[in-house]
Amino acid sequence: MTTVAAYAAPAAKAPLERTTIERREVGAHDVLIDIKFAGICHSDIHQAREGWGEAIFPMVPGHEIAGVVSEVGSAVTKYRVGDRVGVGCMVDSCRECENCVAGLEQYCLEGNTGTYNAIGRDGEPTYGGYSEKVVVDENFVVRIPDGLALDVAAPLLCAGITTYSPLRHWNAGPGKKVAILGMGGLGHMGVKIAHALGAEVTVLSQSLRKKDDGLRLGADHYYATSDDATFKELRGTFDLILSTVSAPLDLDRFLSLLRTDGAFVNVGAPEEPVSLNLFSVIGGRKTLAGSGIGGIRETQEMLDFCAGHGIGAEIELIGAAEINEAYERVLNSDVRYRFVIDTATI
Amino acid sequence: MTTVAAYAAPAAKAPLERTTIERREVGAHDVLIDIKFAGICHSDIHQAREGWGEAIFPMVPGHEIAGVVSEVGSAVTKYRVGDRVGVGCMVDSCRECENCVAGLEQYCLEGNTGTYNAIGRDGEPTYGGYSEKVVVDENFVVRIPDGLALDVAAPLLCAGITTYSPLRHWNAGPGKKVAILGMGGLGHMGVKIAHALGAEVTVLSQSLRKKDDGLRLGADHYYATSDDATFKELRGTFDLILSTVSAPLDLDRFLSLLRTDGAFVNVGAPEEPVSLNLFSVIGGRKTLAGSGIGGIRETQEMLDFCAGHGIGAEIELIGAAEINEAYERVLNSDVRYRFVIDTATI
Repeated sequence: MTTVAAYAAPAAKAPLERTTIERREVGAHDVLIDIKFAGICHSDIHQAREGWGEAIFPMVPGHEIAGVVSEVGSAVTKYRVGDRVGVGCMVDSCRECENCVAGLEQYCLEGNTGTYNAIGRDGEPTYGGYSEKVVVDENFVVRIPDGLALDVAAPLLCAGITTYSPLRHWNAGPGKKVAILGMGGLGHMGVKIAHALGAEVTVLSQSLRKKDDGLRLGADHYYATSDDATFKELRGTFDLILSTVSAPLDLDRFLSLLRTDGAFVNVGAPEEPVSLNLFSVIGGRKTLAGSGIGGIRETQEMLDFCAGHGIGAEIELIGAAEINEAYERVLNSDVRYRFVIDTATI
Repeated sequence: MTTVAAYAAPAAKAPLERTTIERREVGAHDVLIDIKFAGICHSDIHQAREGWGEAIFPMVPGHEIAGVVSEVGSAVTKYRVGDRVGVGCMVDSCRECENCVAGLEQYCLEGNTGTYNAIGRDGEPTYGGYSEKVVVDENFVVRIPDGLALDVAAPLLCAGITTYSPLRHWNAGPGKKVAILGMGGLGHMGVKIAHALGAEVTVLSQSLRKKDDGLRLGADHYYATSDDATFKELRGTFDLILSTVSAPLDLDRFLSLLRTDGAFVNVGAPEEPVSLNLFSVIGGRKTLAGSGIGGIRETQEMLDFCAGHGIGAEIELIGAAEINEAYERVLNSDVRYRFVIDTATI
């Protein structure tokens, strides 16, 4: 066991504070990673505040981890000391079910093991990236290509793959009209990736406040959802709407913006159930779907794609002491576009 | 104009009664059809009682029409006097939008013209199949193959195509596990067609009351949704669930029965909005979708498919005087499985 410094929430809704946690010994298939940067994801807040149900405390959030390998287990073949690597939202799965075998570990039929707020297959709680070091099985570690700086790469491990995977699955590309709903941490990555995939990209945001950024990051159009005219003008327009918002939505209204056979895909997740008129999907044979992160192989593919297109996250680098303030700012949509913790400050 | 006898609802929620209506002169592209049989669809009742919103009265319901051509317009090329034909849920569309051009007239961007409870493109109200004759543009008429009796063919024009189209679109076939939710007019057609397509078919019905019928019509398995054990046993089972019910559903519970990447497709339409937890689609990348009838070309394909597989509806033939009683029995799920009006009795 190795004792490392970390920032943890001691209880639901309590502020995060500095503490120490134990990391397991480096097993035969494990790598020890010196964490350099950890992104702050909205879901860190949902979980630390038990918005998604009962959670495990103390909680060290963080599933957007970028660092450098500092030790490898005896059987490790994929990584060496000094390699630049990332860890995302999961650190294990059953590895045997049809989904794991298909590279869809995120949908492991036994449930994947979350990077934090989970009990690992060794029976011990998992702790996330707001810490100095982490020990992870090499099969749940991905390589960060040389062209990508570690700080802007960190958010790709959740925000990047969460948008990349559905954009690929629902065929965003040339000739397709794609809307990104929400211009936050996930949304701004969705804009960059959809643009790089060749789609015609529209941002649907509450206001036009971030319009200049949206256009700079690759959007072709930018509309405010607070303006009723948006819904008239864009009726029946999109092949795909990727919803990154976690606030409750008027789904029927957004479904009206889809073309026939279009899909509205949720990667954001409101804490409360939403209401839906089924006629909204029957007319036009529309799809309401969801998508959760992506598999390990696809996460590597996403990182390689982003490196090839010069895509990193837009970040605000903060010290660990600013985490609680950053949480409040995330809740107020006051971040452009992802807080990343410099873990040297922990 | 030709005066013909019909059964009509004079006002919302009023009983249907015998009356007469005017049919337009047979235009150059029209065929006059002597209606022989007309199915009673649950949506006839929804509309006659304004469950789906304001409607047009007097209303002659009926969009499952089977009959014989008795006159053709000067420019008609597809049909001759004596041909056995059917008319389904629509009698016109704009014919120019991308959906119409693609054979998806049901999703016409200007809205298709319903067979009844609609205003035709000539500005006149349309009247449905509970009548002696109807005049329809030949492009919205389909041919009933010789192998199919007209009485059991009538319900195919709505119940048949409404289930055939999504079963084909979502690839029901060999190796696929398909559930048909609801064992009524639509559901029993779904069972027959899914079975004929080669899928492994499970009926999910409120009770086991119709189990013998379900297995006889082609289901491999039959479960009661009133039994909690059903949801435990079938968790994560289906590639496709086709929901034919128009009562409100616990969608989250049914979505848990889908496999990863599975689809829950609604062809039934509750009058009230439903509640949905978006985590139900995010976990397992699931789809909640809808589908409305089918295009004219696909309707012909469906009829040919059904004739080839010896598939007709299971019907109870009634006289026109029994329509109001039949409506009550449909609302009580007391019909095996479709009422068909012998229009000679009007």
